[in-house]
Amino acid sequence: MASIVCFLLLLLSIARSCHGGITSPYVRKTEASIDMPVEAFPPPEGDNAPEQVHITQGDLIGRSVIISWVTPKDRFPNTVTYWPTGKKHHHKRQARAVTTFYRYYNYTSGYIHHATLNKLKYNTRYIYELGRHGSTRRFSFATPPQVGPDVPYTFGIMGDLGQTYDSNVTLTHYVSNKKAQTMLFVGDLSYADDHPLHDNVKWDTWGRFVEKSTAYQPWIWAAGNHEIDYAPEIDEHTPFKPYMHRYHVPYRASHSTSPLWYSVKRASAYIIVLSSYSAYGKYTPQYDWLKQEFPKVNRSETPWLIVLVHSPWYNSNNYHYMEGETMRVMFESWVVENKVDLVLAGHVHSYERTYRISNVRYNITNGMSTPIKDPSAPIYITIGDGGNIEGPAYRFTEPQPSYSAFREASFGHASLEIKNRTHAYYTWHRNHDNEPVAADSLWIYNRYWYPEEEHSSASYMV
Amino acid sequence: MASIVCFLLLLLSIARSCHGGITSPYVRKTEASIDMPVEAFPPPEGDNAPEQVHITQGDLIGRSVIISWVTPKDRFPNTVTYWPTGKKHHHKRQARAVTTFYRYYNYTSGYIHHATLNKLKYNTRYIYELGRHGSTRRFSFATPPQVGPDVPYTFGIMGDLGQTYDSNVTLTHYVSNKKAQTMLFVGDLSYADDHPLHDNVKWDTWGRFVEKSTAYQPWIWAAGNHEIDYAPEIDEHTPFKPYMHRYHVPYRASHSTSPLWYSVKRASAYIIVLSSYSAYGKYTPQYDWLKQEFPKVNRSETPWLIVLVHSPWYNSNNYHYMEGETMRVMFESWVVENKVDLVLAGHVHSYERTYRISNVRYNITNGMSTPIKDPSAPIYITIGDGGNIEGPAYRFTEPQPSYSAFREASFGHASLEIKNRTHAYYTWHRNHDNEPVAADSLWIYNRYWYPEEEHSSASYMV
Repeated sequence: MASIVCFLLLLLSIARSCHGGITSPYVRKTEASIDMPVEAFPPPEGDNAPEQVHITQGDLIGRSVIISWVTPKDRFPNTVTYWPTGKKHHHKRQARAVTTFYRYYNYTSGYIHHATLNKLKYNTRYIYELGRHGSTRRFSFATPPQVGPDVPYTFGIMGDLGQTYDSNVTLTHYVSNKKAQTMLFVGDLSYADDHPLHDNVKWDTWGRFVEKSTAYQPWIWAAGNHEIDYAPEIDEHTPFKPYMHRYHVPYRASHSTSPLWYSVKRASAYIIVLSSYSAYGKYTPQYDWLKQEFPKVNRSETPWLIVLVHSPWYNSNNYHYMEGETMRVMFESWVVENKVDLVLAGHVHSYERTYRISNVRYNITNGMSTPIKDPSAPIYITIGDGGNIEGPAYRFTEPQPSYSAFREASFGHASLEIKNRTHAYYTWHRNHDNEPVAADSLWIYNRYWYPEEEHSSASYMV
Repeated sequence: MASIVCFLLLLLSIARSCHGGITSPYVRKTEASIDMPVEAFPPPEGDNAPEQVHITQGDLIGRSVIISWVTPKDRFPNTVTYWPTGKKHHHKRQARAVTTFYRYYNYTSGYIHHATLNKLKYNTRYIYELGRHGSTRRFSFATPPQVGPDVPYTFGIMGDLGQTYDSNVTLTHYVSNKKAQTMLFVGDLSYADDHPLHDNVKWDTWGRFVEKSTAYQPWIWAAGNHEIDYAPEIDEHTPFKPYMHRYHVPYRASHSTSPLWYSVKRASAYIIVLSSYSAYGKYTPQYDWLKQEFPKVNRSETPWLIVLVHSPWYNSNNYHYMEGETMRVMFESWVVENKVDLVLAGHVHSYERTYRISNVRYNITNGMSTPIKDPSAPIYITIGDGGNIEGPAYRFTEPQPSYSAFREASFGHASLEIKNRTHAYYTWHRNHDNEPVAADSLWIYNRYWYPEEEHSSASYMV
């Protein structure tokens, strides 16, 4: 009988929760958290000491790293000294940075350096050193294993972080999670634009705040709306100006012509980063690039295909509801045809995971506009729950739509432990829990190698 | 009984042609026309003679004109001399141009001049002169009447023109239509990008081809996909480079920050130009601008609200079917809320006119995704039938969807004769007819002042 009802409702194109998605009744405090004071992030000791250190992958395959940092007073030194650990008589190498700065209304940035370290060995820890005599700072990072289909690797996932006391809990939880090797960050970094005149000092404090992670492991960046910093009222007309000066990505390696969309291979994963706030209509650069990108993905080399985008294509929160519709309409069919495993998004300050569903049959006149189960479709995860100044998004649409598997208005982060070409273990870690336990977890089966149905184990609090 | 069937079909969200739209059985020859040879457009006589002359409105209200031209060899003279007709002892004035040029792969443009003539009198014909001694050229234009609610004014409408023998018929028909005072051009100008290396000489020949109209009346430009000229394979990464160097528009007057979207008032019309190939997601510059633009429209001052965009939001041709969906999803509700009278688009090389319909109720889960009759909605006109090199789009979707009122795979142009605040007479002129007779015509009733239902009189050939 239930199935007949479901069928009838489907016929009428009215979606109901026939799958039994879970809305966690737990709601954290609904007030917005406040930013930590600027004084909480003093610059490091020493004259012209390098600060806001962050690294990201520097090429297509993981044998290169871009190291970025800021020096407040002097352009020099703009070199990195680096060497592999483990050998007694290691050979130290140096890389020189490209240095830039920018002005934004009444703010002038420090000197922003981007140095690319090339021809690194796979699976090796490197030490690197920035600055000079009294103000030298030393960090380290590990290169990934060589790209290959059964290479285990663990990614962290986070979005909409900001720099509040809640952001701090999220980041602290993440740093204490020793498994994660690389962060997939789905956009909205500093929230500087929430402050008068887009106070760019907040970009500096954010860079210092996250350094304890970003200096030690690559963060793969996607741009969010808080990176746009478009403010014609103060004559700031260039979208993404602070972000693009501060955060360099290896977009040319994937033949992109913009740092706002690009891809990297890392271990067993192929990661495609898209831009919700650039043009994506047919014939546009992003569209043309993505169209050429999917055929390049070789699932025998990188079984796991993951898309990062800021504005979610499936979101059942009243907050930002349907904002991602236009990009979904444009690209969802490609994502399904290419059996993408996961689409990760932020933007909504809440957590949500969908079933494998698609909504690609609509042709305007046929009325087939309701999402349906689809084993070729990705799981959509909305994880804009980093803890920023704007507070959580705790008003969900009711009833929970059939595409939504689990949703909760808490802050947190997630991790994805890829085990081999068929299995990955996904966990969401709620900040409220004293330790980073998994509040939502799922064995994810690869869509290309093992397209079976998954079963989640969400543990929600009452 | 019929209404019950319609209602039931609507319930099931299956669109049927309940209105009785017309698909004209006439199909012009289906082969693509070929470009007229480059030799058909020799440069004008004289040393460094000004060529490719075109004018457009230069401010928000019509008291300014931008005159643009190219000089092939020398940057100077870069001035316009101009004076009003009708007075015996007129005072000649001069305006100096801003001069630019660009390189595109192996092509270097001539000197491209843009001079703005300000503080013109309304409703006045001006003579203007370019060049020096042996190569002086003289043209004229008429300023519009002062902006006001009952000012009669006639606009031409054209799109996807190109420079074929068919393009020539379209333009010749248009020029022989003496009523039209200003062209609303919905994008796709030269089709240079259809030639090897985007042969920019085709931009020059096009500028010469259309001069017989563009030098004498303003063409209001919207950018199409053939203006993008994005070609990373030849290291041309800057979208719209040739177009934006050659065609200046008064975007700053409407507080836009890009020449790709802007608005002008002219006589009794408020014209909003959008860009299908720029970002339009929430928070993007185009989105922010358009959101602030609609409240500025005062229908007591400019009763007629017209939107120009290249990629149609409603199109029932197989060619480019649903390409405009994403922008429709983003902006259609604003267009309906603000009672836009007409949305003019090109892109599809065919002619189509819709009923007043909207499709703005869909919320993902309710299945309400079928266009319905809506007296607040605009009429959508697709008029990408200028006659370009790619040929006509003669395969329509079948059955004709309920939103489509008239469609025909011919080339042509249209005109809109605004009579007063309530009535405008719209006609589509098929090229095939020896004279520019109206193949589709309609009294259009203003949505703000007289939102009654219209009745068309399409005369299709068999």
